[in-house]
Amino acid sequence: MTQSFYPPQRTLMGPGPPDVSPRVLGALSRPTIGHLDPQFILLMDEIKALLQYAFKTSNELTLPVSAPGSAGMEAVFTNLLEPGDKVVVCQNGVFGGRMKENVERCGATAVMVQDDWGKPVDPQKLEQALRANPDATAVAFVHAETSTGVRSDARHLCRLAHEFDCLAIVDAVTSLAGIELRVDDWGIDAIYSGTQKCLSCVPGLSPVSFSERAVARIRQRKQRVQSWFLDMNLIMDYWGGDAKRSYHHTAPVNALYALHESLVMLQEEGLESAWARHQRHHDAFAAGIEAMGLGFVVDVGARLPQLNAVRIPAGVDEAFVRKQLLQNWNLEIGAGLGSLAGKVWRVGLMGYAANRTNVLLCLSALGTTLQTMGAAVTPDAAITAAQEVYAA
Amino acid sequence: MTQSFYPPQRTLMGPGPPDVSPRVLGALSRPTIGHLDPQFILLMDEIKALLQYAFKTSNELTLPVSAPGSAGMEAVFTNLLEPGDKVVVCQNGVFGGRMKENVERCGATAVMVQDDWGKPVDPQKLEQALRANPDATAVAFVHAETSTGVRSDARHLCRLAHEFDCLAIVDAVTSLAGIELRVDDWGIDAIYSGTQKCLSCVPGLSPVSFSERAVARIRQRKQRVQSWFLDMNLIMDYWGGDAKRSYHHTAPVNALYALHESLVMLQEEGLESAWARHQRHHDAFAAGIEAMGLGFVVDVGARLPQLNAVRIPAGVDEAFVRKQLLQNWNLEIGAGLGSLAGKVWRVGLMGYAANRTNVLLCLSALGTTLQTMGAAVTPDAAITAAQEVYAA
Repeated sequence: MTQSFYPPQRTLMGPGPPDVSPRVLGALSRPTIGHLDPQFILLMDEIKALLQYAFKTSNELTLPVSAPGSAGMEAVFTNLLEPGDKVVVCQNGVFGGRMKENVERCGATAVMVQDDWGKPVDPQKLEQALRANPDATAVAFVHAETSTGVRSDARHLCRLAHEFDCLAIVDAVTSLAGIELRVDDWGIDAIYSGTQKCLSCVPGLSPVSFSERAVARIRQRKQRVQSWFLDMNLIMDYWGGDAKRSYHHTAPVNALYALHESLVMLQEEGLESAWARHQRHHDAFAAGIEAMGLGFVVDVGARLPQLNAVRIPAGVDEAFVRKQLLQNWNLEIGAGLGSLAGKVWRVGLMGYAANRTNVLLCLSALGTTLQTMGAAVTPDAAITAAQEVYAA
Repeated sequence: MTQSFYPPQRTLMGPGPPDVSPRVLGALSRPTIGHLDPQFILLMDEIKALLQYAFKTSNELTLPVSAPGSAGMEAVFTNLLEPGDKVVVCQNGVFGGRMKENVERCGATAVMVQDDWGKPVDPQKLEQALRANPDATAVAFVHAETSTGVRSDARHLCRLAHEFDCLAIVDAVTSLAGIELRVDDWGIDAIYSGTQKCLSCVPGLSPVSFSERAVARIRQRKQRVQSWFLDMNLIMDYWGGDAKRSYHHTAPVNALYALHESLVMLQEEGLESAWARHQRHHDAFAAGIEAMGLGFVVDVGARLPQLNAVRIPAGVDEAFVRKQLLQNWNLEIGAGLGSLAGKVWRVGLMGYAANRTNVLLCLSALGTTLQTMGAAVTPDAAITAAQEVYAA
């Protein structure tokens, strides 16, 4: 007979999910109500408004897709592309590659603009690609690459997309609520994120937003969207502003309670304050990592505060270190992904997990573990350096 | 400033979600761990084994899709069909129509076998359609139609599918854990369900299972699955039996805690006992409804115990009744859907909500509300009749 499952209490500093606030977990377990209950409709309206706040947009079509971030990505591509379309996809990590997969599965063509992993997307390369492909209808890039910890200049890339009359499609899975992101000011036409990154809600939902230009393209499609579940023409009728909500699918009621609570917390803190908090704890963490004798993959100007790709010292068995951290400290950090597998650890400082306790814990745990293994690191210097940043 | 959301405490007797057990809500809010944590991998293995128990299958490819039932439906069709394929779809309610949508969006053709809403799928019509379409590669039907409350003879329909060398695709969204369902014995090749019906877990996940024959078809596809998110070739690598789990998407960790707990509860009760419990409470409810002077859409032999389509008496404003039940009794029952809209209420007796308290509450609330409105019903007789069933 299988027993109930009681998870260990971890500190989550990987690439997401990060630690989830007890407030959010409390909201998650409130009594389920029906997905057409009048009270639930009010909740949906509030979630929409709160997401507009988090995205800095007045886009009417702003809602959480009822599935994880990869479904949000698919919702964007499958609604905006038709067979034969051409999209310029900028890749500088794992998730640009996943965009290519999505574009091709829509029967469209992806023109790839490649940059080194750990470098931002190069606007000049994008411009060249757009000049060479005047029939492209969209540009897609990742704002915050979770696989490398690099930030690209979304404002600049969107401006280029518009100069060439393309829709600007942005992956904001890891950026939303962690770094500056302005959907309307930057002219982002379609964006998707995840709940399990800097919103530090539980995984399973994907906030998306579409500009009027993007909605017009969806409404003018020649062919039906190939996914029924992700067809925004149908989902709009459930999440739409009018009184009559048409049943589409059964909304994940309790997960939406949790998302609502995490967004209420974001509003209480203030979006700009949340961005600043991520930066402050990153600064302390980075000072500690460097004082310890370790280095980063990404140059200082392009580093994401919420996702830190730390180089593994030569000769260190990286999986053994992660195992030690998990077993001895209940601390999770992430492994490298794709071409950075075995070369970096990915340390997340996202949402509720972006706090001083976690920064100091991680520096201590990583430093002493490496020291025990004989690596030339100085954990004490790390703690001192981090504390100095906090004291400043 | 938006405030935290505190839902009302409803009794949920609509078409799902039903009441969720406090044990399941408790599991839902346990501390989040990483989706690649060794403890989480163990949980996944247990969920898989528990789903095999619930489906009565030894299918290796048995797992919960990380999205609601409609995504489970889409996962089945999008993995098994390729453009140009022909599928015989049996429709006797809303969800057969949704199957048609899915088939067509895969670029395949749906040959429709129509039956009246409220009647089971007619095996003779299916056989005729299969004779007329020897190039069909699959048969699809809904085991328990949530829109009408009718049960079809899944065993018989699957046998016919196999006689004509077709895969048997079954919608078990409302049937799983509520009525007899035997994936292996009946030769079901692909099946999908939802967590928010007779498992009485929160909405948001879709258990699916594929036979070896179905898996072979997926592996031998000529074209890639059009959905990256739902591509079982990729998902198998994360949920697969080997030690190395490849990251595909971030699993909805907390929702999976809840599913695990609901399946543990099912195992504790025993699957056959759960089927019998649904039947017992339906019998009491049906005796009450009929003693009150109301009737059912579905003939007694084909009625689903967990979904009761009750005819609305002439002259009654059905939406007003539902509103009264919600406001005065905190009781949710469902409206009719599609061609039964305005003609029936749908009263669910699913999972944790299939209990004596709910049956008697619903009979009282519905009876007295109708009586207040001047309808010729006899609520006292309803309670007596239901109690007699329980006493027998």
